Amino acid sequence: MNLKNIRYAARMSELRTSDIREILKVTQHPEVISFAGGLPASELFPTAELADLARDLLLSDGARALQYAPTEGLAVLRQLIADRLQSRFGLERTADEVLVVSGSQQALDLTGKLFIDDGDVVLCESPTYLGAINAFQAYRPRFVEVPTDDDGMVPTELERRLAGLDRARFIYVVPDFQNPSGRRWSVDRRRALAEIAARFEVPVIEDAPYAELCFDGDALPPVASFDTEGLVIFLGTFSKILSPGLRLGWIAADEEILRRYVLVKQGADLHTSSLTQLLAARFILASDLDGHVARIRDAYRKRRDAMLAALDKHMPPGVSYTRPKGGLFLWLELPSGLDARVVLERSLEENVAFVPGGAFFTEDGHDNTLRLNFSAMPVDRITEGVRRLGRVLETVMSPAAASP
Amino acid sequence: MNLKNIRYAARMSELRTSDIREILKVTQHPEVISFAGGLPASELFPTAELADLARDLLLSDGARALQYAPTEGLAVLRQLIADRLQSRFGLERTADEVLVVSGSQQALDLTGKLFIDDGDVVLCESPTYLGAINAFQAYRPRFVEVPTDDDGMVPTELERRLAGLDRARFIYVVPDFQNPSGRRWSVDRRRALAEIAARFEVPVIEDAPYAELCFDGDALPPVASFDTEGLVIFLGTFSKILSPGLRLGWIAADEEILRRYVLVKQGADLHTSSLTQLLAARFILASDLDGHVARIRDAYRKRRDAMLAALDKHMPPGVSYTRPKGGLFLWLELPSGLDARVVLERSLEENVAFVPGGAFFTEDGHDNTLRLNFSAMPVDRITEGVRRLGRVLETVMSPAAASP
Repeated sequence: MNLKNIRYAARMSELRTSDIREILKVTQHPEVISFAGGLPASELFPTAELADLARDLLLSDGARALQYAPTEGLAVLRQLIADRLQSRFGLERTADEVLVVSGSQQALDLTGKLFIDDGDVVLCESPTYLGAINAFQAYRPRFVEVPTDDDGMVPTELERRLAGLDRARFIYVVPDFQNPSGRRWSVDRRRALAEIAARFEVPVIEDAPYAELCFDGDALPPVASFDTEGLVIFLGTFSKILSPGLRLGWIAADEEILRRYVLVKQGADLHTSSLTQLLAARFILASDLDGHVARIRDAYRKRRDAMLAALDKHMPPGVSYTRPKGGLFLWLELPSGLDARVVLERSLEENVAFVPGGAFFTEDGHDNTLRLNFSAMPVDRITEGVRRLGRVLETVMSPAAASP
Repeated sequence: MNLKNIRYAARMSELRTSDIREILKVTQHPEVISFAGGLPASELFPTAELADLARDLLLSDGARALQYAPTEGLAVLRQLIADRLQSRFGLERTADEVLVVSGSQQALDLTGKLFIDDGDVVLCESPTYLGAINAFQAYRPRFVEVPTDDDGMVPTELERRLAGLDRARFIYVVPDFQNPSGRRWSVDRRRALAEIAARFEVPVIEDAPYAELCFDGDALPPVASFDTEGLVIFLGTFSKILSPGLRLGWIAADEEILRRYVLVKQGADLHTSSLTQLLAARFILASDLDGHVARIRDAYRKRRDAMLAALDKHMPPGVSYTRPKGGLFLWLELPSGLDARVVLERSLEENVAFVPGGAFFTEDGHDNTLRLNFSAMPVDRITEGVRRLGRVLETVMSPAAASP
């Protein structure tokens, strides 16, 4: 068939299949120790409870669970999300300020569609979340990376860039245990961001999928909690605290902004599954989501500890890494000049997978970085995988390997 | 809060909340006889079967049903959809040529994103599906309506327009019991469209949500069955044959086109719910989807018959309407000069709702048309609602009403 004369939209030239996706294909084999994905531990899913709840739901409220629903989401779930924003993060949002979406990824896509015209500027951390880059890319923005340290975006650097830009449309941040770096912003930096956003009148997209997964102590107050102007748009998801397969996330924002998101979502998929919305609502009402999150935290804490212990033991000198206090990921920096993609090739020969870090930047470079996931593998495989990775790195970094 | 300085994307000026949506809000009250929505009859949902299947699924395969899934969709469901395209429509598509999407509406949004740059031309029927107008609108096309009669788009009119256009990106059609008109294209017109599309090398989006809901005899061969070039992209959905609340649809297309849809979907929502995908697959495997569709058809046929009988009895002279052989909708034309929105206001006073037809055109005008849904109300309410509508029309159309 001759399809070469079909004309696609110009945006298609910006979209490439994600590196992660291609790597994940390689890691389907059970013998591979994969630190590549970002999968929650599926053995912790509350399958038996959800099985009974799903049956009860369909028997007692099936006509609603299987029918069309409002674009905004079902009232019961919007209220439960608003309640949770209050109880977990001290965020004051009513149910009318919550839009249920089909996973956080949809929130990112709707954000791009709502705000970005060709060439508009999106400010983001360096590195930043790959899925956000992909979602926004379709609307053809110009990305401006803001220097970021262990405490978050550097406020003076952000201010300097905003002062020089007249088409900054929003600032995208992941302040809690960021994917990919695992970093958490300090409280001061959160407050500073809200203050700068207000001064420049630029919206902030606060993406918080991992905010509840803190291993030591409580969650820090979100950027949104310091927002006095209604400029911070808070994105959350059930993917990391209950199940990603339900495809349930939310956008919490000022009603004036939210009604525009609703318009955009209406055209995108009419509404999110009524069945999965009502199932999540029943789980919150009938079960113990907080207890469940605590179990996930405990398991991931052990896995992080195992990964850090193995890294401390097996990484050659010159390799540095973050020590995340929560979330799913840890970030590794190799000596400059080393290419993580080359390391990956060698590592796959040892049946160990990870994601090279370059994909998490909007600019080229940073080839000497990589992301490790610690949530999806049991402790013994983490230990073994890091041991093998250490061996690979020692070979690659040896003086012999460096000489031609 | 002062949010007036926030800058939104230019496309937002094109998006308005759908008329239907606003009317549906009015029709929530149980005393309203609503011909306005497009809801499947919820009393026919197989809730008890799905309840047992959902429980079994979560108990036996919960780790998969609750985990992330490939963007393309789960293999088992893609295969079942390919099988059904073969058995119901004679379409030869492999599982690799099927992408599972979050309802047909998402297929329309992805289509806009894949094909449309600002100002590109989209050709469509007159009238056409409102949800498609909304989805495409976000990508700022120029719509060109092609004259359409009871047999479908008029081929010579389509050819004439294609010959004069250099930026035609695709032709959007709903050949089976179209929403809103209820019309079904003849086989000749289907063949002609495939032939014209091939000659001009323009893709066709064949949207077929109602194709299985034919009340008399078998489904007609889809446009895609006459496609020799891989240019026809076929959209289907479980919304009308099983449940819209699952949010499950599909795109069947040549692999070269499909892999671009996959890229676009990846950024839009990563993938469609694993739980609802596997639940639909279990229903097809363990239950009797064909028998279920037959029950839906029987119920809707009776409702269509009741609506036509009531229209024949109660419509004043000068009002004409389609006699659909399937689907959910029927289309009414009032004498020119009458405004269906004015009729709606009067009709709502009698607790009867419908959708004025103007919204189903991309150009202004056609104010004297309206859409009636016959799937969502039982026979006695259909009869009563049409009786009241007849009374309203007689008042509005009386010589007394016409004089000032």
